[in-house]
Amino acid sequence: MATSKCTRLTGDLSRRFLASVDTVLFDCDGVLWRGDEAVPGAAELVTGLRKSGKRVFYLTNNSTKTRAMYADKLGRLGFGAEPGEVFGTAYCTARYLRDVARLRGKVYLIGGTALSQELEAAGIPHVGSGPEPVTGGMKEWAALVKEPDVRAVVVGFDEHFSYMKLTRSLQYLQDPDCLFIATNTDTRLPLEGGRSIPGTGCLVRAVETAAHRKAQVIGKPNSFLYDCVVSECGLDPERTVMVGDRLDTDIQMGSTCRIRTLLTLTGFSSLEDAKSYQESGNLSMVPDFYVDSVADLLPALSSADQ
Amino acid sequence: MATSKCTRLTGDLSRRFLASVDTVLFDCDGVLWRGDEAVPGAAELVTGLRKSGKRVFYLTNNSTKTRAMYADKLGRLGFGAEPGEVFGTAYCTARYLRDVARLRGKVYLIGGTALSQELEAAGIPHVGSGPEPVTGGMKEWAALVKEPDVRAVVVGFDEHFSYMKLTRSLQYLQDPDCLFIATNTDTRLPLEGGRSIPGTGCLVRAVETAAHRKAQVIGKPNSFLYDCVVSECGLDPERTVMVGDRLDTDIQMGSTCRIRTLLTLTGFSSLEDAKSYQESGNLSMVPDFYVDSVADLLPALSSADQ
Repeated sequence: MATSKCTRLTGDLSRRFLASVDTVLFDCDGVLWRGDEAVPGAAELVTGLRKSGKRVFYLTNNSTKTRAMYADKLGRLGFGAEPGEVFGTAYCTARYLRDVARLRGKVYLIGGTALSQELEAAGIPHVGSGPEPVTGGMKEWAALVKEPDVRAVVVGFDEHFSYMKLTRSLQYLQDPDCLFIATNTDTRLPLEGGRSIPGTGCLVRAVETAAHRKAQVIGKPNSFLYDCVVSECGLDPERTVMVGDRLDTDIQMGSTCRIRTLLTLTGFSSLEDAKSYQESGNLSMVPDFYVDSVADLLPALSSADQ
Repeated sequence: MATSKCTRLTGDLSRRFLASVDTVLFDCDGVLWRGDEAVPGAAELVTGLRKSGKRVFYLTNNSTKTRAMYADKLGRLGFGAEPGEVFGTAYCTARYLRDVARLRGKVYLIGGTALSQELEAAGIPHVGSGPEPVTGGMKEWAALVKEPDVRAVVVGFDEHFSYMKLTRSLQYLQDPDCLFIATNTDTRLPLEGGRSIPGTGCLVRAVETAAHRKAQVIGKPNSFLYDCVVSECGLDPERTVMVGDRLDTDIQMGSTCRIRTLLTLTGFSSLEDAKSYQESGNLSMVPDFYVDSVADLLPALSSADQ
C-alpha cells in the first residue's frame, strides 16, 4: 500500500494498514504508558492485536528494567507479555557484549540494578554498580587503583552517577582498547503529568567529554534492538511496523531498518516536529503514519475482527 | 614588531619582544605549574618580569580556588602575588552575576567551596553546595521541591556532582528566565606526571544535555576574564601578551581580545596542534610565538636588565 509520508491513520486506511501488518514493534515510555499510568485504550489495543494473530514486541531504550521486570510491568498495566518479547537496552547491551563484541574481561558499569542483573544473566563480570561517595582530593582521584581486566565501560541510567564514577570511567577509557558502550542517549525520561528527569544521554555526554571519545550506542535510533528481534524471533520487514513517540529514536530506527513507522502523539514528539522535518527534507525522521494515541486504532481492529 | 605567526621566541627576538611588553597575562595550570609542582624556572621568570617593571596578572579557568587561595599557592610556589592580580573563574563568575547580570535572587550552585566563598564575598545568596545523596525514586526526583527565588544555575568544578544535582539543575533551567552560567568548559584538569581528571566541561555538558540549553561561559576562550583585568586595572592592548598552554582557550582568547599570544609547551597543546591549525587557516588558534617553557625567556630578561 503506497502512501505519502506523515498521513493520519483513520477509518478505512487504518483497516487496510492493520491487514498489511503481522508484527508490531512498540516503544513503551510515551507510547503505552507514562511513568506508571497506562495510556487509555493502549492495553486493549495490544490485547486485540494479539487476538487477531499479530505478534507484538517491545523495543525500549530505557535501561532501568530487565526483560522480566518489563514483563511484570506490562502484565500489571494490562498488556500481558512474556520476557522473551521485550527488547530493552539492559538485555540487549548484555547480548551485544557477549555475542557481538565477545568481551573477554570485566565491565566497569555506570548503571543500575537491571543492567547489573542482565550482565550477570549473560555471564559478564562487572564492577562499579551502586553508590561511590567521594574521598580524598585531586591527587588521589588521578591515581585511583584500576580494577584489573576491565575491558569495557558501559553507561546506562544510574541514579548514583557521580564525579567519582566519571573519574573512574576516564581512567579505563584512556586505554584505546577499552570498549565504550552506551545503552542509549535519550536526554530526558518522561514521567506522569508531563514531568521529566534527566536521561542517560546526559551521563553519556559527560563521560564522552572526559574521555575525548564517542560511545557506541545500543539503543534506538541504532538498529541493534531490531536486529535482536530479527535474530531471535524472525520477522517479515514488509509486514512490520515500528510504533513510537520520538522521531529521533523510534521513527529514525524504523527508517534505517526499512520498515513502516507510526508516530503516536502521546509522548515526546509533536506533529509540528514531524512536519518540520518533512519540509526540510529530513525524511528519515518523518513517520509514514501518525495517530493521536495508539487507542485510535481500536475501531479498525474491532471491525477487522468482525 | 611585525612577525609571522607561530615563531619560536629565542635570542634577540625574545629581548625585543620583552621590551615591547608592559603587561603579561599568565594562565596557571600547565604554564606555571602542574598540580602542586612549579614549572622549573617559572617563578624566577615571573619575579624577574616584576623587577623589570612589568605587570603580571593570572587568568585561570580553574574555579576551585578563590583569589586569596591562588595568591597563597602562588606565594608558596615562589611566584608571589596579590589576590587582586588573580582573575580566576570563581571570582569572575561572582563579578559577572553581581555587576553584569545584576542578579536579583539566589544561585543554584554546582560547585565547590571556592565558588561558594566568592559568591558570598559578592553578596550573592546560593544553595546546593556540598554532597547530596540520592533518595527516593523517579517520581520523587521529578517532583523535587524547588528553592524559591533561584534565578540562576551556576556550574563549576564540583567533586560532589551527582544525578540529584543534575536533576535539580534541570528543574530550575526549565524556566527560560533562569540564567545558566558555566565557569569554564575545559574537559580535563591536568595534574602532576601527565595525569588528569575530568574537568568542569564534563559537568557542563551533562547539564546542557538535560536542559536542552547552552550555558553562558565565563572562562576562556571568552573574553570576560580579560575584560575584568581591563576594567579593574587597565592595560594597553598593544603592550600586553597572553601566555598559555591551550590553543582553544588561552590563545583563542588572546586572538579575540586582539593582544599578542605566546604558547608554552609544558601543558596541554603541542606545536603540532598549532601548526595544524595554521595549515587549516584557523589562525585565531595559532599563537604569535611559542616557547618550550616560560623559563626559556629567562636569558632575555637577564640581558635586558643589564
